[in-house]
Amino acid sequence: MPVPHHVKDLALAPEGLRRIQWADRQMPVLAAIRERFERERPLAGERIAACLHVTTETANLMRTLVAGGAEVRLCASNPLSTQDEVAAALVAEYGISVFAITGEDNDTYYDHVRSCLEMRPTLTMDDGADLVSSLLFIGLGRLDQVNPRVRAFAAELGDEGCRALLEGVRGSTEETTTGVIRLRAMERDGVMAFPVIAVNDADTKHLFDNRYGTGQSTMDGILRATNVLIAGSTVVVAGYGWCGRGVAMRAHGLGAHVIVTEVDPVRALEAVMDGFRVMPMAEAAPLGDLFVTVTGDKHVITVEHMRSMKDGALVCNSGHFDVEIDVKGLEEAATERWTARPFVEAYGFADGHVVHLLADGRLVNLAAAEGHPASVMDMSFANQALAAEYLVHRGAGLDSRVHGVPREIDRSIAALKLETMGVSIDVLTDEQVAYLASWEEGT
Amino acid sequence: MPVPHHVKDLALAPEGLRRIQWADRQMPVLAAIRERFERERPLAGERIAACLHVTTETANLMRTLVAGGAEVRLCASNPLSTQDEVAAALVAEYGISVFAITGEDNDTYYDHVRSCLEMRPTLTMDDGADLVSSLLFIGLGRLDQVNPRVRAFAAELGDEGCRALLEGVRGSTEETTTGVIRLRAMERDGVMAFPVIAVNDADTKHLFDNRYGTGQSTMDGILRATNVLIAGSTVVVAGYGWCGRGVAMRAHGLGAHVIVTEVDPVRALEAVMDGFRVMPMAEAAPLGDLFVTVTGDKHVITVEHMRSMKDGALVCNSGHFDVEIDVKGLEEAATERWTARPFVEAYGFADGHVVHLLADGRLVNLAAAEGHPASVMDMSFANQALAAEYLVHRGAGLDSRVHGVPREIDRSIAALKLETMGVSIDVLTDEQVAYLASWEEGT
Amino acid sequence: MPVPHHVKDLALAPEGLRRIQWADRQMPVLAAIRERFERERPLAGERIAACLHVTTETANLMRTLVAGGAEVRLCASNPLSTQDEVAAALVAEYGISVFAITGEDNDTYYDHVRSCLEMRPTLTMDDGADLVSSLLFIGLGRLDQVNPRVRAFAAELGDEGCRALLEGVRGSTEETTTGVIRLRAMERDGVMAFPVIAVNDADTKHLFDNRYGTGQSTMDGILRATNVLIAGSTVVVAGYGWCGRGVAMRAHGLGAHVIVTEVDPVRALEAVMDGFRVMPMAEAAPLGDLFVTVTGDKHVITVEHMRSMKDGALVCNSGHFDVEIDVKGLEEAATERWTARPFVEAYGFADGHVVHLLADGRLVNLAAAEGHPASVMDMSFANQALAAEYLVHRGAGLDSRVHGVPREIDRSIAALKLETMGVSIDVLTDEQVAYLASWEEGT
Amino acid sequence: MPVPHHVKDLALAPEGLRRIQWADRQMPVLAAIRERFERERPLAGERIAACLHVTTETANLMRTLVAGGAEVRLCASNPLSTQDEVAAALVAEYGISVFAITGEDNDTYYDHVRSCLEMRPTLTMDDGADLVSSLLFIGLGRLDQVNPRVRAFAAELGDEGCRALLEGVRGSTEETTTGVIRLRAMERDGVMAFPVIAVNDADTKHLFDNRYGTGQSTMDGILRATNVLIAGSTVVVAGYGWCGRGVAMRAHGLGAHVIVTEVDPVRALEAVMDGFRVMPMAEAAPLGDLFVTVTGDKHVITVEHMRSMKDGALVCNSGHFDVEIDVKGLEEAATERWTARPFVEAYGFADGHVVHLLADGRLVNLAAAEGHPASVMDMSFANQALAAEYLVHRGAGLDSRVHGVPREIDRSIAALKLETMGVSIDVLTDEQVAYLASWEEGT
Repeated sequence: MPVPHHVKDLALAPEGLRRIQWADRQMPVLAAIRERFERERPLAGERIAACLHVTTETANLMRTLVAGGAEVRLCASNPLSTQDEVAAALVAEYGISVFAITGEDNDTYYDHVRSCLEMRPTLTMDDGADLVSSLLFIGLGRLDQVNPRVRAFAAELGDEGCRALLEGVRGSTEETTTGVIRLRAMERDGVMAFPVIAVNDADTKHLFDNRYGTGQSTMDGILRATNVLIAGSTVVVAGYGWCGRGVAMRAHGLGAHVIVTEVDPVRALEAVMDGFRVMPMAEAAPLGDLFVTVTGDKHVITVEHMRSMKDGALVCNSGHFDVEIDVKGLEEAATERWTARPFVEAYGFADGHVVHLLADGRLVNLAAAEGHPASVMDMSFANQALAAEYLVHRGAGLDSRVHGVPREIDRSIAALKLETMGVSIDVLTDEQVAYLASWEEGT
Repeated sequence: MPVPHHVKDLALAPEGLRRIQWADRQMPVLAAIRERFERERPLAGERIAACLHVTTETANLMRTLVAGGAEVRLCASNPLSTQDEVAAALVAEYGISVFAITGEDNDTYYDHVRSCLEMRPTLTMDDGADLVSSLLFIGLGRLDQVNPRVRAFAAELGDEGCRALLEGVRGSTEETTTGVIRLRAMERDGVMAFPVIAVNDADTKHLFDNRYGTGQSTMDGILRATNVLIAGSTVVVAGYGWCGRGVAMRAHGLGAHVIVTEVDPVRALEAVMDGFRVMPMAEAAPLGDLFVTVTGDKHVITVEHMRSMKDGALVCNSGHFDVEIDVKGLEEAATERWTARPFVEAYGFADGHVVHLLADGRLVNLAAAEGHPASVMDMSFANQALAAEYLVHRGAGLDSRVHGVPREIDRSIAALKLETMGVSIDVLTDEQVAYLASWEEGT
Repeated sequence: MPVPHHVKDLALAPEGLRRIQWADRQMPVLAAIRERFERERPLAGERIAACLHVTTETANLMRTLVAGGAEVRLCASNPLSTQDEVAAALVAEYGISVFAITGEDNDTYYDHVRSCLEMRPTLTMDDGADLVSSLLFIGLGRLDQVNPRVRAFAAELGDEGCRALLEGVRGSTEETTTGVIRLRAMERDGVMAFPVIAVNDADTKHLFDNRYGTGQSTMDGILRATNVLIAGSTVVVAGYGWCGRGVAMRAHGLGAHVIVTEVDPVRALEAVMDGFRVMPMAEAAPLGDLFVTVTGDKHVITVEHMRSMKDGALVCNSGHFDVEIDVKGLEEAATERWTARPFVEAYGFADGHVVHLLADGRLVNLAAAEGHPASVMDMSFANQALAAEYLVHRGAGLDSRVHGVPREIDRSIAALKLETMGVSIDVLTDEQVAYLASWEEGT
Repeated sequence: MPVPHHVKDLALAPEGLRRIQWADRQMPVLAAIRERFERERPLAGERIAACLHVTTETANLMRTLVAGGAEVRLCASNPLSTQDEVAAALVAEYGISVFAITGEDNDTYYDHVRSCLEMRPTLTMDDGADLVSSLLFIGLGRLDQVNPRVRAFAAELGDEGCRALLEGVRGSTEETTTGVIRLRAMERDGVMAFPVIAVNDADTKHLFDNRYGTGQSTMDGILRATNVLIAGSTVVVAGYGWCGRGVAMRAHGLGAHVIVTEVDPVRALEAVMDGFRVMPMAEAAPLGDLFVTVTGDKHVITVEHMRSMKDGALVCNSGHFDVEIDVKGLEEAATERWTARPFVEAYGFADGHVVHLLADGRLVNLAAAEGHPASVMDMSFANQALAAEYLVHRGAGLDSRVHGVPREIDRSIAALKLETMGVSIDVLTDEQVAYLASWEEGT
């Protein structure tokens, strides 16, 4: 009898299995951790609720957690990003509980979150902080702020049950910049009830996944959705954080004229020095052929911006939440609307110009392509697996706030990755170690 | 009653129509030509047989030829590259004869060539010179060298019919480097029977389509087929012609370490100066993570090369014919074989290492992605349309050999393209024109 | 009567003045601060001893400090980096005390340090921590560790005088990565006696000066010294910190094949992902045409490495101290030695191969070129000026350890720089500020 | 007794010798040819007049011609580009006649041309066609069009002597794009009197020297003259031929925002696709921080353009003749003028803004830096040497027009260069040769 689940179609499992194995070939760091976990079982007895994009890479992380001895439930962190065949394979081939269906509506999304909470997790893994915020709202009794489906669950639990649910959580890990921003806001508001490891802040995560992963997969999603020529076109990238750098770098690498918009003067100056033009979005709007938002902020592209765009402009988002583009405003402003291609919705304005919205303003790299390549997720998810182990071993000693990934975990992942790539590096000599530690030797 | 055709499913037409219109938005040069053709009808009375990749861009070229007054038949220039919904839309929505089905076998491929020849074309358009070579073999009576399906057709025609078929051809146009190499060989052998315009040799074709088009679409095809991370990987590009430059440039733009192999010392030196490592394929084979052939030559990657590759190496081709990789040799050498993902065939060697062949060694950009973006094909096909018009107006005065596209056509296409992109440029002043024409003014 | 000084030739002053004014044109941020300082006189009563590269940019910083009301003495932070005409102009045109002569020997170098200490500074500015370490050695009575010239000065002061000297220092600022490493070692050893602002750690310093400044000026120094073609050559960059990134980026931008060596696995991995080959120096040594060290560490290139280099290899350093290449070892190992060009010393090995050492292993960008361009030093020195003001206003409240530059100083400098470049950026809307501060809004 | 000469100071010879030897290390292809010439003496009995930039690389070419048995005289092809120490060394160390002094005035320039003509050359080598045009003007009796110094010489020769001078010339070689444009104009006007080999048209010349050589050395000259930061600045490159591509590529490689101006639509479109903005100069003028002309045309930057530039804009030329910028117009329009740095002349306009002209509008890479690096001139001058040999062996059979460098010379130089760089490449197999020659094998 299969484990509890809600997926599209278990018949998709063989295809999913094949794809999970393909990803596994490119995740040697996670595989090495999985082998150790199988021997050492560091997560034995833990119940892990994970709210992540349901992709082949996540599947290999789930396998690793199970290898470590944990019981696992997985729901989607985004209604559009689930790969249904992967969900099916996790259930049917690996016996792991999954609650995720591509294109699920908001209520189903939260039904799935509820299914994860029902396992009364000892650890959670988040990609956008939806599990943690749900747990805190429930635990704090702020039920008006949760989705009705979660609220109904809280009602069933009763006040005490709600508190017990929250107290049962040993700690959490968070994957994204967006989630970390939310968590720091929670910390500042004094509502945090357990330690959280900001996996996103690990160098081996954000320097690689956010930059090289988001960079490539965003352009990949755009190409699959549109097949437009990037060379010679003007690409406007909103945000010059690690994700924005990645997108700008890859758009430039494909021959685009890149314009960057920013609100932070240091980052803006860095973009200028990196060879990109920088200007406010209102100035960039009439110049761009393609717009990509990766800011973690809301309404970075407004209806007014879209009114002033060229006929045929393409607009998409690669930030975590679908709030960066004012989609609702666009829908209201448009006088006509049709589907130009899969993942490309055309909106006609009264003056005749058309703006194309990709993937409904949701993560274009996950919706129209396959998300980050496995080899970059290898490191991000190695951090997740090792952060979970760290919470089990050391979580009791940590304050209820946001913590970084310990430096030694970070370095060990980088070293392991280099090894699997066949790259060796220099080692400090004793003389060099001594030199770096001294301050006496001058000019 | 529909026009003569052989396509997969006419029910796909609405989807094809939508995609043809999407491409059309990005082909403003061809659209401008189409509008003029509708008024002037320069191709009235012509019968054009076209053997091209059946894509959305080709569809818009076909529409343009029909607008010019021609009767048109289209077959596929590659068994894997047909977009079935486009073929359906051409037949059902535009009333244009198409003979093409994705994945057709070799006999069906030549049945379709035959269907084109049956119209007794006055002009042909080729993408690899299959129509021209078939016509010449038939006209020269070298029937042992043609496919049995074409041979049967020749037999029906009889000797005189064969000659008449050849004599009825006013001229031809050729799209690819590979085709032009073949045509020059024909010219050298003295068998050419009509003038051919080497569209490939137009600056607005090969400098753009081969470089920016092949570059982007090849990487696009590879990403769709594999979803591997390019950054930090080693990509070996065989051939540093315009296509090879494009692929090397884009692989580098995605963060790859690029190695180039070449047989021409000038090109090899150029690759070195462009910052790429250059070495023989036998040395590159054990270093690469991904191999792309774009040489126009045969067996550039041999079984011996593949024997020495890393476990998991990816091998693909973006040259016109599927001869660049020794696929047959690979099939014989492999002890195991399975499909790892769509378009990715894994071949296991006896020593345990696996080589992944993409798209069966056929054009990876057309098989796994959608071929060149419309905006670059816009110029290539503007050349095709204007070359056809040129053959009608001036063909009688041209020798039976390979001709370039007239310089004024080339420049007018570039100027029109710039205009549609909103780019204006400087114009020589009278003083400057005089200066350039003089030689008296020195130091 | 001129101020106390020791410079090469006051007759060089007019040339120096012209060059200082040239730099001033490109330092609008510092100029804006200077104007405010003239009005507000925030440094009135301070005695500032500065040990910095005596360049046109430093000259404009000195002018700014004087405008702020300070008395200033300047000595060189490197024996080879003084621009003698600038030193002359500071003395003769601006009335600022300078003690610096290009090519001065070690004793003269420390005579000049002594001259600065003699003013009994209330603030010091360092570029490599030589002033601070001298002050601490004197104050701690560890006179065996200072240069004899400084020791003699300490002897004159007597124990109490030495303590008074140290106690008179309100604080210090440090310009370089190397200096900050030394200062943190002092802090760890518990010997720090006043607060130090690590100007190097400001984003507007190290992200720009170290990367874009060092990157360009290092390649500039190499080209002036050698005039070799970089395109197609193999450049080995030792170290992938901000300076190393800058050098690698610019070498690549000039067409080089770049190899990076590192000891930190995270940085090494980043270099791989950025498209560079990474390997130990022992492997890189026989492959490189040009080697650049920017590690802040000692003997990164050893004699053994140089033994295995190609005939004609070029070796240089752009790290702060001249310890990164084992120059002494090279001198001993070489069987022949001659000057091939100014700044290029050829060393012949017994097997006949020659290694060329640039600028004696000292900072090649300062020795063979003019150091960082003024426009990048504009920000670094704006940080210096504002850090000095900050120490005066707030220094009393700071612990005796290494402090960062306050974030608001950093941002204000970036904003001012953007303004002077004519670049404007977006400002967060109220809605966006609220969104970023909230954690309630989820999927 | 020294050979006939006119140089600045023979005492500079030792320094010149050292620098010629430095260049020689980087010119292995020319060295290999020199060795063969010493054995075979293919130029025995020839008198070669060369009008080239008097640099270290040219010195090694002269040595090669002498090794081949020729008598040689060298004058400067540009009044500012002579390296006086090299001229001295050629005379004093190698016994080669040189007539060239940096900064010579126009009359001296033509006195030097005269000195070369006086040897009654059998072959000439030009860099801008000044020798050939002088010879033709003399031979055709169009003496009003030559400089008075050359005219006086013609008068001495008398009509017959003039004709004999011209008839004595077996052929010529030309180094530059500009020269070839002039020569083709002469050919069109029917005045050419002997065959000319357009060395510039060799792939191993213009693809390398014009692109990588001009690209690097132009930026090098600009940095030496100004020490400005390129990253983040806007660089306007006028002309997108091979030189313009090189400059644009290197400016971009240093972090600039590059704008290209062009008059040819195909090249303009290529620049757009390469990621550069393209616009007319009138639009670019107010946007640029730095302007570089490399068009081969006149008054590409006019006074009107300079009126609209930013305060502090830098303007320079890297095209052959100093006509690309309207220097005379600038001098007239400016209300103030001073020397800001060596090679940087500041011109103040009435509205207060200042434009800086580099190197008086002459070749900035030769005036402010050292011209092309030796390793790229290695190939250009290998072409010169082999073209001279070719004219001796085959010149009699060539028409009096502009000829390309034979393909086999081109390929042999590239192959030799690769060998000296330690790069080996693939060789076509018999199967591949056959495949490329066939046209029968299709789909």
